[in-house]
Amino acid sequence: MPVVSITLLPGYAPDTQHRLVNRVAQAVRSVIDTPEAGTTVFVNEVSTYRRDGKVFSEGRAAHPVASDVVRQFLQAMQARDMELAQTFLSPDFRMCFPGSVVMHALQDMTAWAAQRYARIGKDYQQFEESWQGDTTVVFCHGSLHGTWIDGSTFEGVRFIDRMEVRSGLITRQDVWNDLAEHRPA
Amino acid sequence: MPVVSITLLPGYAPDTQHRLVNRVAQAVRSVIDTPEAGTTVFVNEVSTYRRDGKVFSEGRAAHPVASDVVRQFLQAMQARDMELAQTFLSPDFRMCFPGSVVMHALQDMTAWAAQRYARIGKDYQQFEESWQGDTTVVFCHGSLHGTWIDGSTFEGVRFIDRMEVRSGLITRQDVWNDLAEHRPA
Amino acid sequence: MPVVSITLLPGYAPDTQHRLVNRVAQAVRSVIDTPEAGTTVFVNEVSTYRRDGKVFSEGRAAHPVASDVVRQFLQAMQARDMELAQTFLSPDFRMCFPGSVVMHALQDMTAWAAQRYARIGKDYQQFEESWQGDTTVVFCHGSLHGTWIDGSTFEGVRFIDRMEVRSGLITRQDVWNDLAEHRPA
Amino acid sequence: MPVVSITLLPGYAPDTQHRLVNRVAQAVRSVIDTPEAGTTVFVNEVSTYRRDGKVFSEGRAAHPVASDVVRQFLQAMQARDMELAQTFLSPDFRMCFPGSVVMHALQDMTAWAAQRYARIGKDYQQFEESWQGDTTVVFCHGSLHGTWIDGSTFEGVRFIDRMEVRSGLITRQDVWNDLAEHRPA
Amino acid sequence: MPVVSITLLPGYAPDTQHRLVNRVAQAVRSVIDTPEAGTTVFVNEVSTYRRDGKVFSEGRAAHPVASDVVRQFLQAMQARDMELAQTFLSPDFRMCFPGSVVMHALQDMTAWAAQRYARIGKDYQQFEESWQGDTTVVFCHGSLHGTWIDGSTFEGVRFIDRMEVRSGLITRQDVWNDLAEHRPA
Amino acid sequence: MPVVSITLLPGYAPDTQHRLVNRVAQAVRSVIDTPEAGTTVFVNEVSTYRRDGKVFSEGRAAHPVASDVVRQFLQAMQARDMELAQTFLSPDFRMCFPGSVVMHALQDMTAWAAQRYARIGKDYQQFEESWQGDTTVVFCHGSLHGTWIDGSTFEGVRFIDRMEVRSGLITRQDVWNDLAEHRPA
Repeated sequence: MPVVSITLLPGYAPDTQHRLVNRVAQAVRSVIDTPEAGTTVFVNEVSTYRRDGKVFSEGRAAHPVASDVVRQFLQAMQARDMELAQTFLSPDFRMCFPGSVVMHALQDMTAWAAQRYARIGKDYQQFEESWQGDTTVVFCHGSLHGTWIDGSTFEGVRFIDRMEVRSGLITRQDVWNDLAEHRPA
Repeated sequence: MPVVSITLLPGYAPDTQHRLVNRVAQAVRSVIDTPEAGTTVFVNEVSTYRRDGKVFSEGRAAHPVASDVVRQFLQAMQARDMELAQTFLSPDFRMCFPGSVVMHALQDMTAWAAQRYARIGKDYQQFEESWQGDTTVVFCHGSLHGTWIDGSTFEGVRFIDRMEVRSGLITRQDVWNDLAEHRPA
Repeated sequence: MPVVSITLLPGYAPDTQHRLVNRVAQAVRSVIDTPEAGTTVFVNEVSTYRRDGKVFSEGRAAHPVASDVVRQFLQAMQARDMELAQTFLSPDFRMCFPGSVVMHALQDMTAWAAQRYARIGKDYQQFEESWQGDTTVVFCHGSLHGTWIDGSTFEGVRFIDRMEVRSGLITRQDVWNDLAEHRPA
Repeated sequence: MPVVSITLLPGYAPDTQHRLVNRVAQAVRSVIDTPEAGTTVFVNEVSTYRRDGKVFSEGRAAHPVASDVVRQFLQAMQARDMELAQTFLSPDFRMCFPGSVVMHALQDMTAWAAQRYARIGKDYQQFEESWQGDTTVVFCHGSLHGTWIDGSTFEGVRFIDRMEVRSGLITRQDVWNDLAEHRPA
Repeated sequence: MPVVSITLLPGYAPDTQHRLVNRVAQAVRSVIDTPEAGTTVFVNEVSTYRRDGKVFSEGRAAHPVASDVVRQFLQAMQARDMELAQTFLSPDFRMCFPGSVVMHALQDMTAWAAQRYARIGKDYQQFEESWQGDTTVVFCHGSLHGTWIDGSTFEGVRFIDRMEVRSGLITRQDVWNDLAEHRPA
Repeated sequence: MPVVSITLLPGYAPDTQHRLVNRVAQAVRSVIDTPEAGTTVFVNEVSTYRRDGKVFSEGRAAHPVASDVVRQFLQAMQARDMELAQTFLSPDFRMCFPGSVVMHALQDMTAWAAQRYARIGKDYQQFEESWQGDTTVVFCHGSLHGTWIDGSTFEGVRFIDRMEVRSGLITRQDVWNDLAEHRPA
């Protein structure tokens, strides 16, 4: 039964408004056991808005979709376009790989990976977002396929990435996978 | 600047209403770049509500907090209280462990684990929820500590669990960890 | 898709609120081609209300249901309880019967009817209301059965009544029926 | 005192919105004893609307005014433009005339009428609508004038029509009148 | 915490809407001890509005800012542009000066002043408004400087004016000042 | 036509809510030329409210009525109850009397007055408030009556006080009057 009214200043793109009503509906339905049919959310644009002693005439910027940021980063990495990949990273970016290997620079990661496999690719099964205020955490899981250093191949190796996105930039990547279970002795 | 009004039938517990306004605020802030200070959410209880040709006088049930369900399940597992642990699982529960090991029954899992380590404990760093409508996915990550079969010990081994919760029951658990990176040869 | 919010002062009985949301939904659906599933109406009780320079703390009275008033009047007439029937009539009550026979007093009507049939009864098929602001017009149709002056009987004779109700009292009754089609020559 | 807010998607014509606020005000005033001066109804157009898991960007169609449909049908009948009259009828149209004469086709009705009078016209006193959800029932009453088969004339003969309108088409017409009271023996 | 929604017909200038949200916020904060940061006011323009049985499609006119009216009047007076000054006065204008001197015409006032000082000017410290429904009372205070009849000068003489403004015209001016404290004997 | 909805947490006394709707109506009517009959303001109490990342369950305190504070202070002064009068003053209280006499302590004022008149009383004609956010300015005007040092009396001497009230305490009093116009030479 909930009816949710979101009062906004005008100027948000239809896409942003759609994303907003969808996410708010999902947040509501995560709390209350109500079917989609009974969940109504709408955006009401107001013409003048005052808070904190100031009159606003235009809404705040919209965030990019965090899972899109992550997807674009991962595609750039797979295409080995390090320059593009770097644009999605926050200056204080930090990544952590299996074995608790912590790195900050993409080239370090590439060097480290080169010692472990000759080629690697990711098949994504799902991107999922956890909305936490200033930060959105994106999880993506799926399977890895590639070639070991010794030329043998692997596929169907489970992985999951956890990426923190803040103000549209990735601040942290944590990677888990089953490669060690499959690694040639 | 968004002001969000959630219209509900009366009868929801204060805790549920708090959870609701918090989650809706987080959903809104995941889309719009607005500070906490500019984000207002309130619950408006109405006295009579009609939709779909029916007049309702009482709100729907609230879901339990999905990450609480997961936490209670994991605690029961750690305490080896299989009976209690089972109460958190959906009849079609399915789990998947490193190496793509798929199981459905808790005792199968215990048997499988017994071949890999003598004892294991989890230190949880974070529980995170992804609200997806009928399903809430809970991610928790942290580190494992325990004793191998050979009596040697391990600690600080990274893990992440992904649990799907539906109608208050866990339908699926996926586990990734670095145990294979640390396993004695 | 319409969502209708009715802001009221507190104090209206649940029955009145149910009637209100149902009628408003019907009024909306008479204009917009929207299914019941997409029509939401709720009552929002406010705690303080000011209009026309006055602060109100209690809502206005509810009208009785106009078709109930009409039904009770017709039952009293059928039971020949003229005293009770009279209580449902406005001082300026006026009725009009087939042949444009206009009367103001119930006893005139009884006298007039006595010349036409010995006994009469009504089977109601439907009561329908037309909401017109200060006045609600109630239409009821169905069939008549009874006994003519000569002792022969009739049944299944179509009739329709149109009754104007104002402030809970009937101000006007117009009657049409097929008795003349069936009257013994 | 009621303040009624109707939340709609944009795109409804001003005429439709006027009709909507007028009818909702009448529905409200049929329940609560409030003067026009204390009855406020407004339409609030929202920019994005989500219900039942779908985002809508355009409102539903408006129904034609049911009493206009009836009026146009009756005018076409009076002008003996059967082709036009037929366009206002639902495929399952059914009419019922004094004496419980039931017909489905306009030509049957014309044939039936030809045996009763040579010419007939209607003076409408009032069209009244009863809003019942999927159906709006239109009542119109007034007086008939015309010429009998024998060439004698009549006028001031009371009639009332009850017409059911569904999705803009008339599904049922019931007619009552005093012709039998006036018919030459 | 208050969130105030002002529902208006469209057509009010942005300036008027800004004034409205600012004043309403001030009225609210004069009653409730809430900081600016917790006070939200917005204007919601609706597309169709019905009250008192009438459908409105355009909002009412805005009043001029009462303190602007007063300021313009006082400037015209200072510039000795009596014709312009007169345009800000209501036909029933009445002024009252120190010593309870009551006058109605500007020229009377000029004549009266000519007996008291040769020249006078006002430095305004503050204009303040008291909103009282049909009337807004404007207070302005500051200091006077000028030249007495005897050629000696004065400055820093405190004054306060109280002006009633109704429908954009000044109906009453009351003046207090310390001139008598400083007047040469 | 404005309809103003004030959303509050529950717990404000009816008196406070009445004051709130009255003042907001006056603020609105100071901007828009709308009659009382067309001005609707109501208070909507919500059950849960979140802003700035916090969930509130109780509204903020209400301010005392500023003109009541001033009235009580002036009454205490007139009754020469300095102790009581002092309780209405802010620690940084400052008063300014005709002739630009500035004082901070009530006893200084009493001493100063003793040199000017033997006894004084005030007849209040009107208390008026100017709502300015953190401060409410109260103006009161009327006439003075009393006895000069030489035993002669005066009455009908115009005065106006301007008092700044902040958080329920008077921070500043400015006084103008015509005493110098009437003072015995």
